[in-house]
Amino acid sequence: MSDRASEASLPPVVQAIRANRRELARLLTRIENNEAAAELAALYPYTGQAHVVGVTGAPGTGKSSLVNALARHYRTEGHTVGVIAVDPTSPFTGGAILGDRIRMRDLSGDPGVFIRSMATRGSLGGLASRTGDLVRALDAAGFDIIMVETVGAGQSEVDIARAAQTTVVVEAPGLGDDVQAIKAGILEVADILVVNKADRPGVESTVRALRAMLDLGHRSERMLHHNRLVKQTAALPDENRSWQPPILQTIAPDGSGIPELATTLTAHRAYLNDSGTLGVREHVRVEIEIVDRLRETLVARLLAQTDPAVLADLIERVTARSLDPASAATQLLSRFDERYGIE
Amino acid sequence: MSDRASEASLPPVVQAIRANRRELARLLTRIENNEAAAELAALYPYTGQAHVVGVTGAPGTGKSSLVNALARHYRTEGHTVGVIAVDPTSPFTGGAILGDRIRMRDLSGDPGVFIRSMATRGSLGGLASRTGDLVRALDAAGFDIIMVETVGAGQSEVDIARAAQTTVVVEAPGLGDDVQAIKAGILEVADILVVNKADRPGVESTVRALRAMLDLGHRSERMLHHNRLVKQTAALPDENRSWQPPILQTIAPDGSGIPELATTLTAHRAYLNDSGTLGVREHVRVEIEIVDRLRETLVARLLAQTDPAVLADLIERVTARSLDPASAATQLLSRFDERYGIE
Repeated sequence: MSDRASEASLPPVVQAIRANRRELARLLTRIENNEAAAELAALYPYTGQAHVVGVTGAPGTGKSSLVNALARHYRTEGHTVGVIAVDPTSPFTGGAILGDRIRMRDLSGDPGVFIRSMATRGSLGGLASRTGDLVRALDAAGFDIIMVETVGAGQSEVDIARAAQTTVVVEAPGLGDDVQAIKAGILEVADILVVNKADRPGVESTVRALRAMLDLGHRSERMLHHNRLVKQTAALPDENRSWQPPILQTIAPDGSGIPELATTLTAHRAYLNDSGTLGVREHVRVEIEIVDRLRETLVARLLAQTDPAVLADLIERVTARSLDPASAATQLLSRFDERYGIE
Repeated sequence: MSDRASEASLPPVVQAIRANRRELARLLTRIENNEAAAELAALYPYTGQAHVVGVTGAPGTGKSSLVNALARHYRTEGHTVGVIAVDPTSPFTGGAILGDRIRMRDLSGDPGVFIRSMATRGSLGGLASRTGDLVRALDAAGFDIIMVETVGAGQSEVDIARAAQTTVVVEAPGLGDDVQAIKAGILEVADILVVNKADRPGVESTVRALRAMLDLGHRSERMLHHNRLVKQTAALPDENRSWQPPILQTIAPDGSGIPELATTLTAHRAYLNDSGTLGVREHVRVEIEIVDRLRETLVARLLAQTDPAVLADLIERVTARSLDPASAATQLLSRFDERYGIE
């Protein structure tokens, strides 16, 4: 997975995770527990090599089977594959109830595949940045393709999708009204649309509906989004000039359409490189990440310097409705500012 | 909806939203656009009266129909009802593709019901706090019951659920493996479990699976969660002492089980009051909200004081992988600290 001659000059953490899957697993656990700042800084220069693919979609679309089928395909082509599955399951169930995880076991004897389930519970925010750190660890460990699978369509899924270079949105025929709603929300982040379970009735109407929604809103929405995100960075190329999200059909269990999907993923990566879009997305991603980190650090520091009795008193007054929450926050901030002469 | 004799002493914003639905709708729009800080402060003392009910669950469970049926039921009992539907649809579609929204129109001629769809797109975080502000506006406007309907099971849904006093998690038979995963993630926030579409095959096994999952993890998880959240507040009563989440069965379109669900919701409200749990949750909610507001204010201020060229340079170096994101954040913070002598 890496050139042996240069191994000796690598930082110890990079050597360890490239040589030993158990070391990699341990590092991922420390990252999830927010205990790996030094390792993440050390491995960061060795990231940026993998193709990071986000796979997202509503429940019932067969995302996990699709990820599984793609991983198998990449293995036959000699590529190594890392998978991070962001599960809304509790830590105590450990994702064990997931039928799809079980189905993935047919890959788990292969050292060229590494699968990690990430619990989303117990975290108040910060999910996207921790997912990004897990991706970096797999990237530095030398995996060629890293797939991040997310369930659902909330803001956190959009944030996670943004960490990917290529985002695949998975649909399936006949999932009803609610799913229509979800599609609109995640179409904006889609680079490739996949209608999975394409042997089911209604596949043509699903494709037609997706096509109509793409024509309606994708381009304008995406540009809006893009412009808002990059407003603080320098002038950057128009990332939406030439990639039109294609709509592919797959049947994950028998592999139909999987080679075409892999080819399209490769084509998108080439487009990202050639058009300069990869750099744009990287800029945006880095800016968001720096700001996210500042946000957490700043509030933690202010709270550490706040007398717990003062905070408790403010909470009491807001609970009693003699003070509103925004004014309470302003009072805490004023105390900090007075102390340091911040005007 | 309020005592006419005391109307004259109310702040203008409260008078306006109680008297005029169009004023209420305008205020909600300003809240969504973050332009109503003064109004929110003025109406805050008049909140805390409504029963706020979160309704969440996976796509395909029929949440919207259930909310609709509950709203109709409450109207026959003479209660006024506000509904906030948190949709993952884009602003430009405005939720118009939602079949469920259309079905709700049979309520929309009734001035005792107010329905609002909230777009989740275009927001980078802050969704939970804005939803909380919308709830407060409906609360101050005098609605007896406010239902917040969320699609999906991401972190944002959990955050939104936390804003509710009573959280209903909706399930349905026969939705497959993925849905099993979602259930584990949101069971933790469930006060009441509803198996909707109870006329479908498999309802008994769905109820059995929910029962097993509740027995397995609900209590321990919830206490863990609770303990983490209240660690900075004073000693508070054990909120999990006596409420066991019941599992109800409903068929929303024909109203089966809806009166029983309404009765259970009332019972949960009474439990919250009698056990002191309402106060615990309010404390936790207020603390989270104050910290969220501080977090946003602090980072916005630091960025406003940062030279854009300095930020652009740091982004450039992180993109080139000569600096890692955490170190970039630390450098920005150090500049701020040096300026104000913060050690």
